[in-house]
Amino acid sequence: MTLPTELLSTLETLLDSRLSLAAADRDHHAASESFHRAPPPDAVVWPETAEEVAAIVRACADAGVPVIPWGTGTSLEGHALATQGGVTVDLSRMDKLIGVRAEDMQASVQPGMTREALNTELRATGLFFPVDPGANASLGGMAATRCSGTTAVRYGTMRDNVLALEVVLADGRIIRTGTRAAKSSSGYDLTGLFVGSEGTLGIITELTLRLHGQPEEVAAAVCAFDTLEQAVECVTATIQSGIPMARIEFVDEVAARAFRQYSGLDLPGTPHLMVEFHGSPGTVREDTGRFGDIARDCGAKGFDWATTPEDRNRLWRMRHGAYHACLTLRPGSTGVVTDVCVPMSHLPAAVAAAAADIREAGLIGPIVGHVGDGNFHSQILVEPGNEAEIAAAKHIATRMAERALEVGGTITGEHGIGIGKRSLMAAEHGEGWQVMGVIKQTLDPGNILNPGKLVPDRA
Amino acid sequence: MTLPTELLSTLETLLDSRLSLAAADRDHHAASESFHRAPPPDAVVWPETAEEVAAIVRACADAGVPVIPWGTGTSLEGHALATQGGVTVDLSRMDKLIGVRAEDMQASVQPGMTREALNTELRATGLFFPVDPGANASLGGMAATRCSGTTAVRYGTMRDNVLALEVVLADGRIIRTGTRAAKSSSGYDLTGLFVGSEGTLGIITELTLRLHGQPEEVAAAVCAFDTLEQAVECVTATIQSGIPMARIEFVDEVAARAFRQYSGLDLPGTPHLMVEFHGSPGTVREDTGRFGDIARDCGAKGFDWATTPEDRNRLWRMRHGAYHACLTLRPGSTGVVTDVCVPMSHLPAAVAAAAADIREAGLIGPIVGHVGDGNFHSQILVEPGNEAEIAAAKHIATRMAERALEVGGTITGEHGIGIGKRSLMAAEHGEGWQVMGVIKQTLDPGNILNPGKLVPDRA
Ligand SMILES: Cc1cc2nc3c(=O)[nH]c(=O)nc-3n(C[C@H](O)[C@H](O)[C@H](O)COP(=O)(O)OP(=O)(O)OC[C@H]3O[C@@H](n4cnc5c(N)ncnc54)[C@H](O)[C@@H]3O)c2cc1C
Ligand SMILES: Cc1cc2nc3c(=O)[nH]c(=O)nc-3n(C[C@H](O)[C@H](O)[C@H](O)COP(=O)(O)OP(=O)(O)OC[C@H]3O[C@@H](n4cnc5c(N)ncnc54)[C@H](O)[C@@H]3O)c2cc1C
Repeated sequence: MTLPTELLSTLETLLDSRLSLAAADRDHHAASESFHRAPPPDAVVWPETAEEVAAIVRACADAGVPVIPWGTGTSLEGHALATQGGVTVDLSRMDKLIGVRAEDMQASVQPGMTREALNTELRATGLFFPVDPGANASLGGMAATRCSGTTAVRYGTMRDNVLALEVVLADGRIIRTGTRAAKSSSGYDLTGLFVGSEGTLGIITELTLRLHGQPEEVAAAVCAFDTLEQAVECVTATIQSGIPMARIEFVDEVAARAFRQYSGLDLPGTPHLMVEFHGSPGTVREDTGRFGDIARDCGAKGFDWATTPEDRNRLWRMRHGAYHACLTLRPGSTGVVTDVCVPMSHLPAAVAAAAADIREAGLIGPIVGHVGDGNFHSQILVEPGNEAEIAAAKHIATRMAERALEVGGTITGEHGIGIGKRSLMAAEHGEGWQVMGVIKQTLDPGNILNPGKLVPDRA
Repeated sequence: MTLPTELLSTLETLLDSRLSLAAADRDHHAASESFHRAPPPDAVVWPETAEEVAAIVRACADAGVPVIPWGTGTSLEGHALATQGGVTVDLSRMDKLIGVRAEDMQASVQPGMTREALNTELRATGLFFPVDPGANASLGGMAATRCSGTTAVRYGTMRDNVLALEVVLADGRIIRTGTRAAKSSSGYDLTGLFVGSEGTLGIITELTLRLHGQPEEVAAAVCAFDTLEQAVECVTATIQSGIPMARIEFVDEVAARAFRQYSGLDLPGTPHLMVEFHGSPGTVREDTGRFGDIARDCGAKGFDWATTPEDRNRLWRMRHGAYHACLTLRPGSTGVVTDVCVPMSHLPAAVAAAAADIREAGLIGPIVGHVGDGNFHSQILVEPGNEAEIAAAKHIATRMAERALEVGGTITGEHGIGIGKRSLMAAEHGEGWQVMGVIKQTLDPGNILNPGKLVPDRA
């Protein structure tokens, strides 16, 4: 696609040097951490206000040119790739903290602010924003993918922590959804509709987020198990016991080996759980004691408590570095990352079946997971460009998704659909997928907002 | 409206005696606890399966006749009234517990099952369903109004506790939304779209609900304050401290007097808080201690602990009986019930302003509220049929809603829109209300599902 001259001149007038057609800028927006690839967009723009976003959308709508929102590009299913060409709207210049209302435990932010930047700003307030996908993603992109991560078991996902949005629609209208109240029964939940819509229904230009009190006391530990089954049973028993875990992460023996190699930690090459507790000194003491009892009953050994903040940071840096640590198990490889979520009772069998599939295929595929939610990932290491291996890895990923559906689970716990999981949507949602398509068609009749993602192709 | 003969004969063939045109049945479905009144529907039907619901909807769609879902009729804004005539679909015969999956902490129910019936069935499982609007409403109606109540501060609203739905759409298609996984990023959140849609987008025929562990230890108390400001400040301080309150309810001096008269409890005629704590013996001890310190700092006196289950039940029966207790303050009256929700920091001023408005109007309007969420109600007592009084009460209600909007709150924390709050929707949502209308039009082009509620009139 070459962009119409009229569109280009409109954008140039509007944005001046914040419009780029340079190959380097376009290529930067065609890359992603994942194995998904697509040609670069035709242009990249960096708006600074909602009004500029609206003007860009209106100009592209008039020209029938796709508009692809871009946060930090960390999504794993090719969400932000310009598969049909068009203009990528990079929101990284809209990265301001608009305001913190500490008494209401809320912050308003621009969409390009990253979660780490927000938490740095919040440090002195005694509050924090808990949603933590590992990557230092933008808050707009996190909302658009309905992401979660290690702390969702305690604090919820983006669904639970976004109170209100400002959104630019496909026709350039700017709307506000939600309020600053803790709850509301005021009509259709438009905030919830835009959270997880992956840039296909509108461009988020402001978010009101729920904050949480920084815990007075934090304790973290890592413990080893002989078998995957023991570790996963410990998770289900812990969740059922109602202990308010702040984090409970599974690491299989392959991933444990990668962590050891990568960060020099002294982990045995067996399955592990990494756990964290938040509360007052009294409740944390009680919770850790109860968890310790359950874990020992399930065969845990080698409890290693991270008592200082430094030790804890090292622990979670290691967990957050999992993706890159695991890549070192096969130098030069890239990861096909899977992401299913199943009802708790099906977790042990689902993890075991995935591990067996990977073994049988002769591939390396460490498994980690936010298992307190029944959510786990394998990262299947493939040689870039080796189509046979990529196909084998994708086959395993599809089997995992199908098995998740068989037990009432979902094809994606937190990464989303993008282009990678569209072929599984009909299997999960049946006619409901068509309903999503109809909503898309109504709100974006010209199909200009991130076309080719999430919803069915138009008839 | 008289129903077309063809429609009547289709419904009769389908439902036999589960179709009624009798005045008593129709009148029963024209009544509500609130002051809203409308003519009765033209017919009432009692389906027993989703397929029957689908057949009813298809027949009504063919005839262009409105279909109004009905749970238990406890909604307070005229939600379930047949304002444009048509067929009321009473779901009370679809009241079965479909299944409990205790390991997954989930239950599947038919929409007509009430929350009390569900909790009775769950008693032996160690689990319970926490959402508690006081009234023994149907779970389908509770989802349709996105209701909450006393326990939302700890366990969330229906938004947080409905995992999946089966829904009959306006064209008779039956879809399933959501999964049994704890979280998902799989496309638009259709479950969230139907929760709170008040029967205007589809009829819910099955719900999958999140259950919670029955707390090992429960403690409850009531404490008195000299002033409204002290009581409300105690709430904001408690919430900000992060104490995981299971319930924290405000009762003003007028309501306290009503409670005393109605249930013979020895409450001084001053503002009160009623609180409950859930946890293990250790955490409850710690939480009650911390709350006690905060409350005393705010001037609480006369702490009355309900230590036995019987005492606790008496306490919450009193709270749940608030509506009827308050009516006795003016025998023969009916209540205009208001329902706003504001950011925590604005709660003291909002409650004080409402109380002042009621006083100035010379009306009796006790104030109670789920203040841990910033949500409170006044129940303004009016003489039925006294239009001047009803107008004065509505004026106060509108002022409360407008003031809530001025500080970023919502016109309804939990009761919903129905017919009573439609005129305030544009003020809260601006263009977003039009977006709701467009979604309605797309999913229900014939405007047969509960027409005249929630969304704007069609152009
Ligand atoms: C190493 C690694 C580990 C990860 N671990 C996790 C994890 O544990 N949990 C988890 O949930 N995710 C995880 N992810 C995925 C990733 O971090 C998320 O998908 C993230 O939420 C995307 O944010 P982003 O800013 O990078 O968005 P992008 O990738 O730039 O965009 C994502 C999608 O959102 C749209 N979008 C972006 N900004 C906006 C906006 N302002 N308005 C509308 N649409 C917009 C884009 O068009 C695109 O469709 C991981 C990723 C990596 C690389
Ligand atoms: C004394 C009293 C106290 C109350 N206190 C509270 C409170 O504290 N918190 C609170 O949130 N609410 C409260 N309410 C309001 C009320 O209980 C709720 O609105 C309730 O959720 C409605 O449920 P229902 O079964 O009675 O629904 P109905 O009143 O029968 O219907 C409500 C709406 O939902 C639709 N509907 C019903 N069933 C379905 C279905 N299966 N599919 C699709 N649509 C459907 C109807 O068409 C209607 O629009 C109170 C009510 C009373 C009378």
